[in-house]
Amino acid sequence: ITSKLPHIGTTIFTIMSRMATEEGAINLSQGFPGFGADPVLLELAGKYIREGYNQYPPMAGIPGLRQRLAEKTQLTQGYFPDPEKEVTIVSGATEALFAAVAAVVRLGDEVIVLEPAYDSYEPAITLNGGIPIYVSVNSGDFSVDWEKVKAAISPKTRVIMVNSPHNPSGFVWSSEDVDHLAELVRDREIYVISDEVYEHITFDGRKHISLGSHPELREKTFVCGSFGKTFHVTGWKIGYCIAPVDMTSEFRKIHQYLTFTTVTPIQYALAEYLEDPVRYLSIPEFYQSKRDLFAKGLAETQLKFTPSAGSFFQLASYGHLSQISDQELAEKMTRKLKVACIPISVFYSDKRDDKIIRFCFAKADQELLEALERLKELP
Amino acid sequence: ITSKLPHIGTTIFTIMSRMATEEGAINLSQGFPGFGADPVLLELAGKYIREGYNQYPPMAGIPGLRQRLAEKTQLTQGYFPDPEKEVTIVSGATEALFAAVAAVVRLGDEVIVLEPAYDSYEPAITLNGGIPIYVSVNSGDFSVDWEKVKAAISPKTRVIMVNSPHNPSGFVWSSEDVDHLAELVRDREIYVISDEVYEHITFDGRKHISLGSHPELREKTFVCGSFGKTFHVTGWKIGYCIAPVDMTSEFRKIHQYLTFTTVTPIQYALAEYLEDPVRYLSIPEFYQSKRDLFAKGLAETQLKFTPSAGSFFQLASYGHLSQISDQELAEKMTRKLKVACIPISVFYSDKRDDKIIRFCFAKADQELLEALERLKELP
Ligand SMILES: CSCCC(=O)C(=O)O
Ligand SMILES: CSCCC(=O)C(=O)O
Repeated sequence: ITSKLPHIGTTIFTIMSRMATEEGAINLSQGFPGFGADPVLLELAGKYIREGYNQYPPMAGIPGLRQRLAEKTQLTQGYFPDPEKEVTIVSGATEALFAAVAAVVRLGDEVIVLEPAYDSYEPAITLNGGIPIYVSVNSGDFSVDWEKVKAAISPKTRVIMVNSPHNPSGFVWSSEDVDHLAELVRDREIYVISDEVYEHITFDGRKHISLGSHPELREKTFVCGSFGKTFHVTGWKIGYCIAPVDMTSEFRKIHQYLTFTTVTPIQYALAEYLEDPVRYLSIPEFYQSKRDLFAKGLAETQLKFTPSAGSFFQLASYGHLSQISDQELAEKMTRKLKVACIPISVFYSDKRDDKIIRFCFAKADQELLEALERLKELP
Repeated sequence: ITSKLPHIGTTIFTIMSRMATEEGAINLSQGFPGFGADPVLLELAGKYIREGYNQYPPMAGIPGLRQRLAEKTQLTQGYFPDPEKEVTIVSGATEALFAAVAAVVRLGDEVIVLEPAYDSYEPAITLNGGIPIYVSVNSGDFSVDWEKVKAAISPKTRVIMVNSPHNPSGFVWSSEDVDHLAELVRDREIYVISDEVYEHITFDGRKHISLGSHPELREKTFVCGSFGKTFHVTGWKIGYCIAPVDMTSEFRKIHQYLTFTTVTPIQYALAEYLEDPVRYLSIPEFYQSKRDLFAKGLAETQLKFTPSAGSFFQLASYGHLSQISDQELAEKMTRKLKVACIPISVFYSDKRDDKIIRFCFAKADQELLEALERLKELP
C-alpha cells in the first residue's frame, strides 16, 4: 500500500506523552488538563446518559446547545450567529478544521498557513487536494508579518488558515491584526479558517477577538472552537463551527459524511452547563493564576522566555545554554529531569530548530511547582 | 460558494424523522433503537465520567477496548486481530468508512459500490477524488450478481465497498458470496471496505461472516463496525476498523486528522461491558423476536414482503396496491397513517422506484404493534 501521507508518522504529542509515561516524568508536553473538570458538568453528562439521551441527535447538533453557543458568542464577541443555520456541533475542533478545509478546498487550490502551525492543518489540506503555502510569523515575538502574508497571496489562494490565541506560541492577535486580515481578503474570493480553540484563555487583560466578531470577516470565516479545551474535557471530543449560512450549508454536507453527528448526552450536558455564563467567563482568571505561577518559577531557571499571552502553553528558549537540537533536549529533559515538553521544530514545515521548547501549564499547581523545581536543575 | 457536493441535500433520514415528529407519527424510518440500552452500560459510562476519565485517550483507542474487540472477533469470527496494530477505535462507523476510503482512494480511482447503498458511501468516494461505479444487486431478493460485479472491474478499480447484513434489504451474505468476492480480488490490487455494522443482527440461525474471517480477504479488507448499533446507543458515535497492519497504519493517519480520537469514558465503559460475551451473543435472539413480531403483523396487511434475514430493517412492496412513488407513499403514510418509513429509491444512484419502503423494527414491541395496527388500514 502506497501512502497518501508518506511523511506522516506518529505525532510528537503521542511520542512525548508515551515517553513521559515510560519515564514517570511530569507530562508538560501534550496539551490537555492535568486536573478534573467541574463535577457539575460531569454529573450532568452522567444524568443525561442515565436518563436515556443516547440515540442520534440532529446532524448539526441539538438545538439547545447551538442556542447556548450563540448566546455565548453574543456575550463574549458581540454578535449572534443563527443557531439554526450558522452553528454546527462537531466531534472536536480537529473535525471542524478538516470539514472546513474539505468544504472549500479543491484540487490545486493554495492554502496559506501561518507557521509554526498545529500539525493537523497540513494533512487536511493535502488530503483535499490543496497546496499549503507557508508564511512564517516573526521570530522572537511570533507576531504576524502582514506584508509577508500579502506577498504569499496568488490567484490560486483559496483559504488562509489562522490561529489565535496561538499554539504553540501563545501569541494573541490585536484588533490591528484582525483589520489587516480583513483588508487582505477584501474583494478577494478567499475564505478564512480560524482555529480559536483557546478563545477563553488569554492573560493580563487581553481579550480574544473572534474573527466572527468582525462584520466583514464574518462573511468569509469558519470559526472553529472546542468545548473540550474550554471546559477541561479534551477526551469528550466536542467542538463547533460557526460560519455564514451558505458556508455552513457546505460545511454540514461534509460533517454529515465524516462523523454525521456528536455524542448526544454530552451535547445535552454542555447545553445545560452553558446556561450559566460564569462557567466560561471564569476561565481566563483560572488560567491566569497558572500562567503566573509557571512564569514565576520559570524565571528562576536558566531558560529564557516571555510570559505567554494566551493558550495554556509557554515557550522557552535554551539556545544560550546548549546547541543540542530541540528534539534531543525534549528527550533528555524527559529522561533525565523527568519533565516532558514539546520541541517546537515539529510545528514548522522545514523543521527549523530555533532551540525553543513548549510547556503545557494546564496542570495542577503542585505538579507545576514540582516540574519547576526540576527545571531549576537545567545546567 | 460553489458546492463540492452539489447533489447533496438533507438526508432522507433527517427528512423522515422530522416529518414523523411534526406529525406525531410512529417513527419506523431512521435506523435507531426506540428502547433504552442496558442500564449496566449506562452506569459504566457515568462511572468513568465521574471518576475523571475525561482527557484524550490514545489516538487509536484505549488498549482495553481494542483488546476486548479482538477477543470478540476471535469468539464470533474465529480470528484474532492484533489489538495494537490492526484495531482502531473511531467516532462511529461513518468515520471508519470515510477514513478507509480516504486511506486508499486517489484521484481517478474507481470504487465499485453495490446498490442499493447507504448514503455516505458516495460522498466519501467523490470527496476523495474517486469515481463510484454502481452495480445493482438482483431485484427481488437483493442477492449479489457476481458476474455483474466482475464485469464492473477495470484496471482503475481500487476498492469494492460491500455491506452485509445489508441496509436497507436485510440480505445476509452466504459463505459462497464471500468466496466469490475473494476470487474476484485475488491477484488484483483491490481493497475491500466492508460495512458490517449489523454484524450481530441476523435471523433464523444465519451467521454473519465477517470478511476478516476469510484468510485471503482479511489481507485486503477494512472491516468497519459500530458499537452504537450493537448496544443500542447510536448517539454515542463509537465504532471501529479492523485491517491488516499496513492498511491500519494508513487508516490511522487519516483518523488522526479527522477526529484524532473518540470519547474516553465511553471507551472505558465499553471495554468493561465487553468483558461478558453474553452482552453481544444475546443480541440476535433479542432482535429475532422483534423481527418475528413485525413480520407476523405485516402479514396481516396488504403489503408484500419476505422476512428480513438480518439488520433491523424490513422491506415491503406496495406496487400491487398503488403506483404512487415511494417518496409520496412514505410521506402519505407518515401524515395519514402516522407511521413513518423510508422510501428506498434514495438508496439508488438513479433513484429508481421499485415501489418498496423500509421499516426499522428496532422499536419497543408496543410501538411496533401499534404501527402494525395502523398499517392494516392501508387500502
Ligand atoms: C490532539 S493531541 C495535541 C493536543 C494539542 O493541542 C497540543 O498539544 O498542541
Ligand atoms: C445516520 S442516520 C441513518 C441511520 C441508518 O443507518 C439508517 O436509517 O439507514
